[in-house]
Amino acid sequence: MDYAEESLKLHYKWKGKIETVTKMKIDSKEALSLAYTPGVARPCLEIRDDLSKSFDLTWRGNTVAVVTDGTAVLGLGDIGPEAGMPVMEGKCALFRTFGGVDAVPLCIRSKDPDVIVETVAMLAGSFGGINLEDISAPRCFEIEDKLKARCDIPVFHDDQHGTAVVALAALMGALKLVGKELCDIRTVISGAGAAGTATARLLKESGAGDIIVCDRNGVISAGRSDLTPAKRVLAAFTNRENKTGSLSQMLRGADVFIGVSAPGLVTPEDISSMARDAIVFAMANPVPEIMPEQAKAAGAAIVGTGRSDYPNQINNVLAFPGIFRGAFDVRASDINGEMKLAAAYALADLAVQDGLSADRLLPEPFDPRIAPAVAQAVAQAARNSRVAGI
Amino acid sequence: MDYAEESLKLHYKWKGKIETVTKMKIDSKEALSLAYTPGVARPCLEIRDDLSKSFDLTWRGNTVAVVTDGTAVLGLGDIGPEAGMPVMEGKCALFRTFGGVDAVPLCIRSKDPDVIVETVAMLAGSFGGINLEDISAPRCFEIEDKLKARCDIPVFHDDQHGTAVVALAALMGALKLVGKELCDIRTVISGAGAAGTATARLLKESGAGDIIVCDRNGVISAGRSDLTPAKRVLAAFTNRENKTGSLSQMLRGADVFIGVSAPGLVTPEDISSMARDAIVFAMANPVPEIMPEQAKAAGAAIVGTGRSDYPNQINNVLAFPGIFRGAFDVRASDINGEMKLAAAYALADLAVQDGLSADRLLPEPFDPRIAPAVAQAVAQAARNSRVAGI
Repeated sequence: MDYAEESLKLHYKWKGKIETVTKMKIDSKEALSLAYTPGVARPCLEIRDDLSKSFDLTWRGNTVAVVTDGTAVLGLGDIGPEAGMPVMEGKCALFRTFGGVDAVPLCIRSKDPDVIVETVAMLAGSFGGINLEDISAPRCFEIEDKLKARCDIPVFHDDQHGTAVVALAALMGALKLVGKELCDIRTVISGAGAAGTATARLLKESGAGDIIVCDRNGVISAGRSDLTPAKRVLAAFTNRENKTGSLSQMLRGADVFIGVSAPGLVTPEDISSMARDAIVFAMANPVPEIMPEQAKAAGAAIVGTGRSDYPNQINNVLAFPGIFRGAFDVRASDINGEMKLAAAYALADLAVQDGLSADRLLPEPFDPRIAPAVAQAVAQAARNSRVAGI
Repeated sequence: MDYAEESLKLHYKWKGKIETVTKMKIDSKEALSLAYTPGVARPCLEIRDDLSKSFDLTWRGNTVAVVTDGTAVLGLGDIGPEAGMPVMEGKCALFRTFGGVDAVPLCIRSKDPDVIVETVAMLAGSFGGINLEDISAPRCFEIEDKLKARCDIPVFHDDQHGTAVVALAALMGALKLVGKELCDIRTVISGAGAAGTATARLLKESGAGDIIVCDRNGVISAGRSDLTPAKRVLAAFTNRENKTGSLSQMLRGADVFIGVSAPGLVTPEDISSMARDAIVFAMANPVPEIMPEQAKAAGAAIVGTGRSDYPNQINNVLAFPGIFRGAFDVRASDINGEMKLAAAYALADLAVQDGLSADRLLPEPFDPRIAPAVAQAVAQAARNSRVAGI
């Protein structure tokens, strides 16, 4: 099927992939008096006297804002807020379908991080959580950090953390198959944008061994003078031996490659130079850093991509609906590292239950057990880390 | 029924009166590829190349943001943005129920008009229209004016214009019954807030005769030194003879009283002093300026209120769903005076069709003809006044 043309046709037909509907019929004076005036004054006053009641008496407790500025939409780049809307609506549809979460797409007409922060912070009383989406790096780090400081609800940049959670889950399965331990491995990440940075951080939190991150200019190391603040943070906790060199040089002897960068950056020779039982997650989309057939032929034991037409799709949809479901279920004020790790473990556990194989590191996206399992693990981690509100 | 307690109970049960749902099933890899990646890239690019396509390819063209800062919620005053949410959600439910319009409640955590304007302006690319709600006067005027200048979509403050439209419609029916002409009447409006100001303006546009507006300090006249900018504008086009004095003095010989102020401001003696066949719309809620029984006993020919338990409820719900439905149907860039007048005429026409009487100036809120009739009239007026986009 030509997905592009068929999708365009459907979007013209749908005129929006989501809609707002009412939970009750308003078909009589009585119904109107209960859902609206005069009855509605009573819940208003209840919230005025206790703001936390807004989570119980309105849709706030189950509603996420899906926020973009349109600067890094899919692989299309900076196409603007309006043009980002079909993706945000799609995300909202996935939140509803997989997580039972109400979701509102908000596309902001500014690229100024402070304006974006201010706009979203002003709306934080209307939502139970904020999902940032398709905001370019390094702006996304500043925006997320500032919003976390400003808001009393979870702020989660899915391109960072959703990707990191699913990649970690897949990695745990892959390591089990090849008989290696997280703490022993050397991982090379290509790409120091949103996904690469968050994956490096989550790997670190999970206890993974040495992590080396490469950007366009090679290995990120403390000695480089061209690092952004976010990359300086990366340099501080990655690259133990302070190596310098190219991606290709780093791959020699590495156990794991995680690509969140650009098509074709990795050659069959690079893969051949990796350690035995190499794990290769080439997730650049739609064209990976190296095509799965090539990676396998070059000796990779296990290969994953971001694509749905190959095995082991590292797909955010496995994570974000359950993560927000769990956060909302316990009214979490944050989605922290413990909760992300819990989500990754829950996904990895499901895959183990189903019988791991080199072509099945993760559950299938439409497996109905996923969101509840992730939600339960995330909720428990929120309680354990004391960010649960109920 | 105790609406307050029953409503509170229901709000705890509902946990939100609206929800977002998807228009399609996402239950297969193919469906996911069409509603989301990779297919969704195509409609994104279509919009990037022609921003107006965002109205066709996303929910934008059918979606209104219902925006408040919580400063003038119902009769409860400044209860804050979170506490205003039940009303905003109720409004969204009415938009959907009566107008088939998707609606998103946004409660802003600031009372600074410029912050509110900036926040909403940043989001204008996500919506087809903005409905301002329960924002205190005179801040609401500044906010609406600035947003109209900033946004390429309709901005409509319902507390102003919705009330004005329905009051004018009721007035047209009442005048027909008592055999007076709009251009000949003298109208006294009590209240120079959102509703009073907009009603005075719309009456002026409709060709009504002399209009006199009173606030707490009496008649608004050019000579007063205590007028806000909005009231200075009122002074310029009302009160032809530049009268001074009290509300009570103004009512002597007046044909019409429109109250959008406070309980009990008008006495039976005031009503008795009005011209023959006096028309009294005492719309302060829940307790009117004068109770209908008293007004009738004092000689008023026709009485209306804002309450559902008396005849002739001047209820905004008759107007705003159809107004936005009509504006969206022709992708109007504004909701202008012509469109508001058209809405009032359409409502008045329906009432005439049903057989006007002193107790039936307006159609019933649940009459299914209302929104389509208003929408059609508004759409035509948008075309005639050249603000229609299609």
